[in-house]
Amino acid sequence: MAINTILSFLVPKENKFFPLINNIGFVLNNAGKALIEFINADKEQMDGLYVKIKSYEKEADGLVDTVFVELNNTFLTPFDREDIQLLCERLDDTLDSINSSSKRVLLFMPNYIPEAAIEICNIISASCEAIYIALKELKTIGKKSDLALGQCDKLHALEHDADDLYEEYMKHLFENEHDSVELLKLKEIMQELERTTDITHSVGKIIKTIIVKYT
Amino acid sequence: MAINTILSFLVPKENKFFPLINNIGFVLNNAGKALIEFINADKEQMDGLYVKIKSYEKEADGLVDTVFVELNNTFLTPFDREDIQLLCERLDDTLDSINSSSKRVLLFMPNYIPEAAIEICNIISASCEAIYIALKELKTIGKKSDLALGQCDKLHALEHDADDLYEEYMKHLFENEHDSVELLKLKEIMQELERTTDITHSVGKIIKTIIVKYT
Amino acid sequence: MAINTILSFLVPKENKFFPLINNIGFVLNNAGKALIEFINADKEQMDGLYVKIKSYEKEADGLVDTVFVELNNTFLTPFDREDIQLLCERLDDTLDSINSSSKRVLLFMPNYIPEAAIEICNIISASCEAIYIALKELKTIGKKSDLALGQCDKLHALEHDADDLYEEYMKHLFENEHDSVELLKLKEIMQELERTTDITHSVGKIIKTIIVKYT
Repeated sequence: MAINTILSFLVPKENKFFPLINNIGFVLNNAGKALIEFINADKEQMDGLYVKIKSYEKEADGLVDTVFVELNNTFLTPFDREDIQLLCERLDDTLDSINSSSKRVLLFMPNYIPEAAIEICNIISASCEAIYIALKELKTIGKKSDLALGQCDKLHALEHDADDLYEEYMKHLFENEHDSVELLKLKEIMQELERTTDITHSVGKIIKTIIVKYT
Repeated sequence: MAINTILSFLVPKENKFFPLINNIGFVLNNAGKALIEFINADKEQMDGLYVKIKSYEKEADGLVDTVFVELNNTFLTPFDREDIQLLCERLDDTLDSINSSSKRVLLFMPNYIPEAAIEICNIISASCEAIYIALKELKTIGKKSDLALGQCDKLHALEHDADDLYEEYMKHLFENEHDSVELLKLKEIMQELERTTDITHSVGKIIKTIIVKYT
Repeated sequence: MAINTILSFLVPKENKFFPLINNIGFVLNNAGKALIEFINADKEQMDGLYVKIKSYEKEADGLVDTVFVELNNTFLTPFDREDIQLLCERLDDTLDSINSSSKRVLLFMPNYIPEAAIEICNIISASCEAIYIALKELKTIGKKSDLALGQCDKLHALEHDADDLYEEYMKHLFENEHDSVELLKLKEIMQELERTTDITHSVGKIIKTIIVKYT
């Protein structure tokens, strides 16, 4: 048992971290919804919808910074310091990756948005929602949350689905797209979208580790 | 001297970590051998051989998870907690990168496998073996293992060879391949293979740090 | 307040870290200048100028290794161990990224160096200088350095400028470059240059965190 875990039985826990982390989950969930709107939009509307995604990314950035400042000012945290830090870094990475994926669509502007891209965006949005739900459960630390663990399993399954989709699409793309610039654009966009589901999956693994460690 | 190092003289060491870490090395070594089989195979056999690589990657994933669970349940570890964690993360990354490199070959299926790709796979396999040998030596912690340090130097040299190979090949590719889709496929595959040797090199650096720190 | 911070009031601080970290900053600043020379050079001179960049990267590598060895041998450091480690890792990443960006120019050798690439190199060089100045201020730990904080803000602004430049250029490139191999070369080079400014920005964030934490 880690020292911090032992001490945590003796000292009242600071709980300002929960509202902050919940807020990050809330913003992430909004970003996931905005991504779906964005990817289904007409080209003319995409610039405007991207602004929303960017603003969520900035908002989460500010919240993560606040958590880090708090971590430096707090002697005992409800979890080990590094667990909170790693969790927030990965949440930040998730929003960065949603942002850079949609940015790539805007910059490269392929002739059309493939169905597989829309489906991966649906998976990303569902993953953001699962993270949001799981993060809300962290406040029940001490009693194992089946709801939160279920979301972690869901994140694993969603990433698996995204992998299959991605692979099938890439195989199709390299066999059938003969315009090499178009192929390059679509490859770059799909890689970034798929990478986003890797990150949401790793968020799930971190949440699971935290739950298992403290119950 | 770190606190954990001081305490480690006073308390009997848990040594369940050594068998686990050795096992990861064993699986990694198998994955390196499977990669050579894969890259030299006929196209028709590649799917089947990839399944082997994927299964090693999953096996190592499970072992790394077990190490992380043990880390959370163990007060004193033979090394500092973060050293074990970082080592296992990089071992995991190595297997992920072997997996994604071979996956790229399958997905993009270039017209031919260049000799340079086969040579880098040989380097990766030799690197996996060097890691396997070095990890087995970690149990002799406390007396400096020349065998393990030699493997770390070897990992450095192997990465250097891979770098040279990669650079020469990329220069050649961009000068001579005029089919841009083919060029893109080969570039992507070679980048991922080269990245794998960066990771094996960083595993070597971590092992060296651990040896130097505890002897 | 972290334990290390409390103890740091009681014990004389080791200050061998400051000269080492200053030296890394000095080498980084030189690498930034060498990058500008490199990107503005004739093709025939590029190989020779690249050697300089590579040698700075190696020099910094050695300094970072020395810091890590010292960290393992020192009980109390002027800052928390992980802060020094993270800072040095990112400084190392910065030099690696300057190295790999210029290496890509050499390997892919596009028909011409776009103005946007030169401008991003100017931004990278200015970022290296800002890091160099900020690192020198770390020795005044305990009294908040406005000079250092100003450099961190500058790093943020420079990354923002690089982002805008990058995006405008990529949009232009994908709309106007019809030679797909040339497009691929320039995309790869610009992505690596832009990534370098992401890293210098993250160095700025780490320095800022350290300043805020210890004053």
